[in-house]
Amino acid sequence: MDTTFTERTTLRINGKRLWDSLMSLAQIGATPKGGVCRLALTELDKRGRDLFVQWAQEAGCSIRIDGIGNIFAHRPGMDDSLPPVMTGSHIDTQPTGGKFDGNYGVLAGIEVLRTLNDQQIRTQAPLEVVVWTNEEGSRFVPVMMGSGVFAGAFTLDHVLAQADTEGLTVGDELKKIGYAGTASCASFPIKAYFEAHIEQGPILEASETTIGVVSGALGQRWYDVVLTGMEAHAGPTPMELRKDALLGAAELIQAINKIALDHAPYARATVGWLNVFPNSRNVIPGTVKFSVDLRAASDDVLTAMEAQLKAAVDVVVGRGQIEADLKQVVYFPPQPFDNSLVDTVRQAAKQQGFSHKDIVSGAGHDAVYLARVTPTAMIFIPCKDGISHNEIEDALPEHIEAGCNVLLQAMLAQAGEAEQ
Amino acid sequence: MDTTFTERTTLRINGKRLWDSLMSLAQIGATPKGGVCRLALTELDKRGRDLFVQWAQEAGCSIRIDGIGNIFAHRPGMDDSLPPVMTGSHIDTQPTGGKFDGNYGVLAGIEVLRTLNDQQIRTQAPLEVVVWTNEEGSRFVPVMMGSGVFAGAFTLDHVLAQADTEGLTVGDELKKIGYAGTASCASFPIKAYFEAHIEQGPILEASETTIGVVSGALGQRWYDVVLTGMEAHAGPTPMELRKDALLGAAELIQAINKIALDHAPYARATVGWLNVFPNSRNVIPGTVKFSVDLRAASDDVLTAMEAQLKAAVDVVVGRGQIEADLKQVVYFPPQPFDNSLVDTVRQAAKQQGFSHKDIVSGAGHDAVYLARVTPTAMIFIPCKDGISHNEIEDALPEHIEAGCNVLLQAMLAQAGEAEQ
Repeated sequence: MDTTFTERTTLRINGKRLWDSLMSLAQIGATPKGGVCRLALTELDKRGRDLFVQWAQEAGCSIRIDGIGNIFAHRPGMDDSLPPVMTGSHIDTQPTGGKFDGNYGVLAGIEVLRTLNDQQIRTQAPLEVVVWTNEEGSRFVPVMMGSGVFAGAFTLDHVLAQADTEGLTVGDELKKIGYAGTASCASFPIKAYFEAHIEQGPILEASETTIGVVSGALGQRWYDVVLTGMEAHAGPTPMELRKDALLGAAELIQAINKIALDHAPYARATVGWLNVFPNSRNVIPGTVKFSVDLRAASDDVLTAMEAQLKAAVDVVVGRGQIEADLKQVVYFPPQPFDNSLVDTVRQAAKQQGFSHKDIVSGAGHDAVYLARVTPTAMIFIPCKDGISHNEIEDALPEHIEAGCNVLLQAMLAQAGEAEQ
Repeated sequence: MDTTFTERTTLRINGKRLWDSLMSLAQIGATPKGGVCRLALTELDKRGRDLFVQWAQEAGCSIRIDGIGNIFAHRPGMDDSLPPVMTGSHIDTQPTGGKFDGNYGVLAGIEVLRTLNDQQIRTQAPLEVVVWTNEEGSRFVPVMMGSGVFAGAFTLDHVLAQADTEGLTVGDELKKIGYAGTASCASFPIKAYFEAHIEQGPILEASETTIGVVSGALGQRWYDVVLTGMEAHAGPTPMELRKDALLGAAELIQAINKIALDHAPYARATVGWLNVFPNSRNVIPGTVKFSVDLRAASDDVLTAMEAQLKAAVDVVVGRGQIEADLKQVVYFPPQPFDNSLVDTVRQAAKQQGFSHKDIVSGAGHDAVYLARVTPTAMIFIPCKDGISHNEIEDALPEHIEAGCNVLLQAMLAQAGEAEQ
């Protein structure tokens, strides 16, 4: 296998073709600001899926759709009974999404197949490119729905019953767009799963690195916090008689930030959502609700961070003016990727001369669920200013191309090139 | 004058009649939770005004309405050419207002006239009870509109052109309810203006004091602050590369609170309104907008507080991650009341044996504008838990009665009782 790998380092994907495909798919749901709004299971999602299916079929694939709408494009191997080497991602977007998040991983997979076709290269194991349903969770929760069902995190019945804000269900909308498939949603043996993705963070760009070798994903604990004081007129209420819920929240926001700093470099802590009641400029806030998002590379650190969070809340409550309610609403355990596949990515980057560094994914990805049931690794490329989930999300063509070349070599290394 | 004052300390208003009048007026716009919603210049406001006019006429008053809808009920003096002794307040309410804010000051004035009528007491100077238009500012800004026009703070044309959120103007709505009067809005000579009001704060209740002798009103400076960082995905963005606008706001909220503590006991500082953008639990806040409300008893202190606010903003901006825009949007200078009238209130409380203490009004009142053009003082009574602008606003009948008795004696002392 190592021999094959070394010999094929001159094989290159077609960067312009991949870029053009990304731009073509981005036309479906294109926004005036240059982004994409293609929410899961909408008519636009259907058109995006149809284009993927067309391209996959043109690349010689058969198409299989499962009960949650995940689309598997299958390129036969010399021994088609072998577990496939798989890659993919998602093509649904945030309401103000960009052209690359998810779409890059799917179209990089298509480009790998096209490149192999150009060179008439067959592989021992079959290859599959997959589109996972509703990764973003903007329209339907839970997020990472399709890969979550595949990995057994949710039952099919549960997710089919989920409704959007208008009461339309996943099940009905899947049927409406024609992607309620008949294949089983159960996971099946996979030799290796790779997912190429923009980093969605600033680390690679800041360090001028082309390839992020993703060793795993941070664990996450999310909380809802409600602080209750007493609303009162800002003018006549002396400072010492106040029960200012926002002042308590301010203290906690700073404490929460410090919790992450205490566990550098991988720990993260964010208060992203905060609402004040009654939110009137001359009324002391009586209630403040906010979210806490803690992330860390190990469960030990995540547990320590939670203890610090609870202690900080206790300090504020202990002053006797504010009551607090803290409730965990999301837990994802830290998810290490497969050491061997991570090394496959690292070697592919190294042998092609790309600058690279090991990195931990701070965000959730379909790959994080896949890692529960199959050997998995990810390939990150830089994105402009680390921005995503934003219409100005951008990436350089040279990085788009480099990440796909790493994916090509990694997949070939795992699938095994057939003798010509 | 002192002789008269002492002799009349046995004269008492009818507490039950005043209470019943308050409860009757509170029926107009009554809410299910026991409060009142009677916004300025609505049909409900008209019905409240009509009831006031009816009661004032039954008490022997003539009615005069000026161009901004202020209603003056005039009880002739023995020498009706003397400047009147005036009392009053407002009967418009907040959307979730209570029964006492404003209404108490107006109906206490009516009760003073009824009591004098009962005892067939005439005064040398005429007495007037006034209803000021749109004190609350809930439907139309600026707040304290009627008294502001009277005091020359705004022109009549300016306020008549102000529109509510539906585009209806003050001028049109005044005409619609029949209270666009013909009397001049210009202030005229007034011997003394008293206003009785619930404290809207917790000081009197906490100190078990019946009467607040109000020596003046705090000055106010209000600001809008916009902090701009950079929104980014909470997962992949390391702590050291963040530009978290909410973290900056948290630091400032604590600094702003400390500014008030530095100038105890009269200084106050409040962040009551705060909005986060994009306000998503896994996105680092890119922009935070919030209000700052600074109050102090002297302009020197207010100026020092502003300097501290600017310095605190500079500290946050100086770290190089967040930009800030600070804009003053409201300024009310500190308004001392008339020393002699304040002492009249103090003596009236003292001679009737009411516990009393000097207090500074933290809130704005019509009296604050009146004080610009005429000698003015206010009488505060406790309200339950210091709460107002809330349907649960409440006050004890004994305090309602006591404040009105103080008002009666203070007005008699200034107007001069005619020889029988």
